[in-house]
Amino acid sequence: MSPEELVKAVDFRYITDVITPQEAIKMLEEKFSSRKKREAEMRLKGYPAYTTSAGWLGYSDEKIKSLCRDSIKKGWTHFKIKVGSNIQDDIRRASIVRDEIGSENKLMFDANQNWDVNEAIENMKLLAQFDPWWIEEPTSPDDILGHQQISAQIVPIGVATGEHCQNRILFKQFFQANGLQFCQLDCCRLGGVNEVLSVLFMAAKFNVPVCPHAGGVGLCEYVQHISIFDYICVSGSLENRVIEYVDHLHEHFEFPVKIKNGRYMPPLDPGYSITMKASSLQEFEFPRGSVWTSRK
Amino acid sequence: MSPEELVKAVDFRYITDVITPQEAIKMLEEKFSSRKKREAEMRLKGYPAYTTSAGWLGYSDEKIKSLCRDSIKKGWTHFKIKVGSNIQDDIRRASIVRDEIGSENKLMFDANQNWDVNEAIENMKLLAQFDPWWIEEPTSPDDILGHQQISAQIVPIGVATGEHCQNRILFKQFFQANGLQFCQLDCCRLGGVNEVLSVLFMAAKFNVPVCPHAGGVGLCEYVQHISIFDYICVSGSLENRVIEYVDHLHEHFEFPVKIKNGRYMPPLDPGYSITMKASSLQEFEFPRGSVWTSRK
Repeated sequence: MSPEELVKAVDFRYITDVITPQEAIKMLEEKFSSRKKREAEMRLKGYPAYTTSAGWLGYSDEKIKSLCRDSIKKGWTHFKIKVGSNIQDDIRRASIVRDEIGSENKLMFDANQNWDVNEAIENMKLLAQFDPWWIEEPTSPDDILGHQQISAQIVPIGVATGEHCQNRILFKQFFQANGLQFCQLDCCRLGGVNEVLSVLFMAAKFNVPVCPHAGGVGLCEYVQHISIFDYICVSGSLENRVIEYVDHLHEHFEFPVKIKNGRYMPPLDPGYSITMKASSLQEFEFPRGSVWTSRK
Repeated sequence: MSPEELVKAVDFRYITDVITPQEAIKMLEEKFSSRKKREAEMRLKGYPAYTTSAGWLGYSDEKIKSLCRDSIKKGWTHFKIKVGSNIQDDIRRASIVRDEIGSENKLMFDANQNWDVNEAIENMKLLAQFDPWWIEEPTSPDDILGHQQISAQIVPIGVATGEHCQNRILFKQFFQANGLQFCQLDCCRLGGVNEVLSVLFMAAKFNVPVCPHAGGVGLCEYVQHISIFDYICVSGSLENRVIEYVDHLHEHFEFPVKIKNGRYMPPLDPGYSITMKASSLQEFEFPRGSVWTSRK
């Protein structure tokens, strides 16, 4: 699609105070002639990613260690772990993971909304010793001003959020307030590709990297399209950008993601890659799938 | 209920950076001994209100004039009209209403989210000549920073919003940012009385008047309880406070609101006043009411 056609697909209502259709067209036009070069690069090397598989709460220390070692062998360089249940436990687990992955790899924390604003700041001061790249969802996902406050207090650690942001108006404010340094839009939370595009345009204007939320069933399949499109057509940058990856339930999709050396290889099949296999639906679809009917 | 019991009913998660349970208890204790006096005042005079019935879009100029005259005869002193469809039309209608109600009565505008941020500021500069008290929902109800910007640009006109605010975290930010000068919480949008209480506490702390959203079927019946409770137990003030009133569908309720001289008279029946009459349900309840079944 031409820049004009693409921009026509986006609703700019309520965001014209930060971006206009004309600005978005100009942004796309600037990247237009060099698109083929970035497409070739994606086909060859893929898009950088990070793994969330090593750091779930409830894993034993031994399991965390072995998952870290396995992930490093497979080429992963960015590791995210869950925090927020108990700060002493968070410190112990973060210490184990940092020891395993070394100082050259990136470590990210995800608090899943567990803290109040001041609690988040205090806890991140304790966790800063592990040199985290970002803290994800430190508090309520609706709290733009809370994230602004946290961001300002924990520099140089970034704040990542967005998987629970329902629309472009929330993202607009997060960008205006510098309430996030990593934009984790979610393809299922936002109202379709059109709304996602408006967020990509604003993120590019504010120079904020988009690292989409994935991991949930089919989300990895969705967001690879968004990030690769963002690189080829909108931002033209891979700096500080990684797609989330969880090695989980991909076997139910017709066109599952392909990961190579910790990177997403571009999907080459038509569509958004989230068609489920007929056999998976027959087995698991609620309430008529065989696993449900056999439970009676 | 004692201050402690009341405060225990409220979830302070995500709002402790602006108010703590201890502060809320102190606030209630300060008003505790003088409660009876304010209760007696309410029983005698009622709670101030405003009417939205005169200014709907689509009314002829003659109808607007006669509705204004009728309302003044009934004792109304605060009038709200809809704006936002076409600025020239808004100017004409505002002019008619201001002429009818005179300079001593209050005029409010409601844009129902029709404008972008800069458009709202420009249009309110044109409408300022009619000396409006507030502009309601000038833009997207999610746009805290947009409302902050509008508020700052149109002083001394206030910004009113809140009927689409889903939780205490949104209201917290509106208060922090001075994005609203009139808090229009909605009893059905928020998650119950407990969530409403948290908003009343924060509004009192930030010294923002609460003028709840009403008018919808049963909303007037609900919100009279909130405002009268706010006056007696929390804010202790009637300054700049009015409950919305629309003369519409009250006949379907067991305990409809009682309006006298443009004021809500306190409900004396038990409960939240929103029990519908059995005969109304039999007739109108979807899909089994007689108006629906007879439509086949």
